[in-house]
Amino acid sequence: MHGHKSSNTEDNSAGRYYFDWAATAIPDSFGVESIAAFGNPSSLHREGRQAKAILEAARSRCAAVLGVSSKQLYFTSGGTESNALALHSMALRKQAAWLLASAVEHPSVRENCLVLERLGKQIGSIGVEKDGRVSPASLEKALDKYPETRFAAIMALNNETGAVMDIPNLVRLIRARGGAPIHVHSDLVQAIGKIPVDIPGWDLDSASISAHKLGGPRGIGLLYLRKPLDPIYTGGGQEGGIRPGTENTAGAVALAACLERRALPEIVKTEYEAARCRWKTFIAALRGMDRCTLIPQDRQDRWFSPWIVQAAFKDLPGEVMVRALDDQGFAVSTGSACSSSQQERPVLVAMGVDERTRREGIRISQGWSTTTEDIGALTQAIREILNTL
Amino acid sequence: MHGHKSSNTEDNSAGRYYFDWAATAIPDSFGVESIAAFGNPSSLHREGRQAKAILEAARSRCAAVLGVSSKQLYFTSGGTESNALALHSMALRKQAAWLLASAVEHPSVRENCLVLERLGKQIGSIGVEKDGRVSPASLEKALDKYPETRFAAIMALNNETGAVMDIPNLVRLIRARGGAPIHVHSDLVQAIGKIPVDIPGWDLDSASISAHKLGGPRGIGLLYLRKPLDPIYTGGGQEGGIRPGTENTAGAVALAACLERRALPEIVKTEYEAARCRWKTFIAALRGMDRCTLIPQDRQDRWFSPWIVQAAFKDLPGEVMVRALDDQGFAVSTGSACSSSQQERPVLVAMGVDERTRREGIRISQGWSTTTEDIGALTQAIREILNTL
Repeated sequence: MHGHKSSNTEDNSAGRYYFDWAATAIPDSFGVESIAAFGNPSSLHREGRQAKAILEAARSRCAAVLGVSSKQLYFTSGGTESNALALHSMALRKQAAWLLASAVEHPSVRENCLVLERLGKQIGSIGVEKDGRVSPASLEKALDKYPETRFAAIMALNNETGAVMDIPNLVRLIRARGGAPIHVHSDLVQAIGKIPVDIPGWDLDSASISAHKLGGPRGIGLLYLRKPLDPIYTGGGQEGGIRPGTENTAGAVALAACLERRALPEIVKTEYEAARCRWKTFIAALRGMDRCTLIPQDRQDRWFSPWIVQAAFKDLPGEVMVRALDDQGFAVSTGSACSSSQQERPVLVAMGVDERTRREGIRISQGWSTTTEDIGALTQAIREILNTL
Repeated sequence: MHGHKSSNTEDNSAGRYYFDWAATAIPDSFGVESIAAFGNPSSLHREGRQAKAILEAARSRCAAVLGVSSKQLYFTSGGTESNALALHSMALRKQAAWLLASAVEHPSVRENCLVLERLGKQIGSIGVEKDGRVSPASLEKALDKYPETRFAAIMALNNETGAVMDIPNLVRLIRARGGAPIHVHSDLVQAIGKIPVDIPGWDLDSASISAHKLGGPRGIGLLYLRKPLDPIYTGGGQEGGIRPGTENTAGAVALAACLERRALPEIVKTEYEAARCRWKTFIAALRGMDRCTLIPQDRQDRWFSPWIVQAAFKDLPGEVMVRALDDQGFAVSTGSACSSSQQERPVLVAMGVDERTRREGIRISQGWSTTTEDIGALTQAIREILNTL
């Protein structure tokens, strides 16, 4: 029987007969799975074991880049789900306790806090300074106000302003207060591959990562958990019971490749320096434009991402500027894509930015393949638009 | 400026400068996204609008195959998440109300019911007959016992036994009782593309679909909702606020292609007939083996999927049979992949199958490319194993 080429299997599978279609189908040609990884990793047969081995190898590669144990990494459908899983684990806790989140978190943190509030949990906000950063003082103030805090979410890099939080220092401050342990979660979606990140060194309890911000596919992300949590979504027990659903093997492999390509410390260091050099020129050019106000105005390079800048142009609503630049060939954004349909700008509100400037704010963000020439072209396009509109 | 080939964009993008990396990165070569669809569909610029158009075209194609409105379809990360979203929407309801689920649901329904119970909701079970099917009588009994029922989950096709539920008839029975409306959810993951499915004709309020069971990629599925529900996971407002997270454009396109390839009514009819013909021979062969017991014993073709069969072999634990077949080149399964690590077989328990037979049960499932020869080879392999073990 061996060596007999079965009609219902492919490549690699000479002599194999696949009779587990209810677990997962053999992918069609337009499928994005690699054939070798097509089995359901929870299946006991060879195809399942191969898929499981591929999945675990991908997890180990991610763990090696992040400097954590592979047992602490759970594949999810993306950054939003990773944030939600961490937050919602609190919903099942019996004891009354506060969840704190910084006032500038991504909607996937901010809005899930509102859901938890509807489920009877108490939610508090950690205010930010005028520059959009959580300071030790603002964190202390929140912890004083909510002494029953058991969970705190502070993102590492804000997606709208590029503000970099001093996570290691803030976590130290939380730990130093003693009392009942506080779970510290950090959304690393914008930070990973862009600025140096050190999950174990920062003493985090959980963290979120998304592949598509790293040049990888949609629908795959990671949740780092120092210790397993109590999952609110359950199912087939995959991913240690933390994230149910047939494992996205191909996505996991692509994410591992992204992390190796973008997030190894030495690569981040080089790319950060290159981005900073390009951004320095751009920020200087923006500062030189009469009608331009940076948000925050006193944007200090040291504490802001060289990949993102938020700027307002006097008498030019953000949406108009985005459309004008789009017409010239430049893709930029108002706020975050995840809130582009909203008129409000909660991150800017938290910073105390006045309403008019909020309406004028746009976000410009560069990537690994952005060149000095691209930035020159953008600068010129902005100048031309300002001359016309 | 137009016509200038930017260094940080690709193909299709002559004269484009991409400065929205914080929304989503330009995919690396190993990414699985199509370049045309790489933009974040929530972004306002051209790349975003293109991605949005591609996403909505994929949704319309899915809607056309399923005979529903595209406004009623929400892309999710898969069948497990679709089931969880439907169930968990009940968590936010204030009023006391029962959720019923059939006793043979997939773990993603069964285990999320346990979570809802921990969140204070009341959960009831709809018993099944000895053949593993929900009968009108068993449904009436559950509705009598739990008159406050507001939600009922009944899968269309059981993943372990292949039992087909008479969904249109069961839904009519629920509607005929009057009183407060009951939301009827059906897990269609195993049914779609395998048996005729008619979401509007069946009068469902919600339903779940997964791409990878249809030959598509992991990490993408659909939730059909007659009317929007109250989502427990929130975030950037994508997918009408029902399913947050940057949209998996490439996955959506692949799912649309799968549905067109596998789930159009005329295709399902043809494939069903072909599968039934192959399965008839196989079932007859199994019935002819002394040591084989079908589960259920009185498996009636009319009400069982021609894609799945559950069978027990006397004195041969299911795991041993799975391994023996695997060694011979045949991939089959014990129970579902999603519960292969569990010793219990809740579906078989609900059917009243004795413990010994439960331990001996294996699931064999065929697919579109399975041939009569494949089935002949499997039959012979089983006979040989039974002669030896």
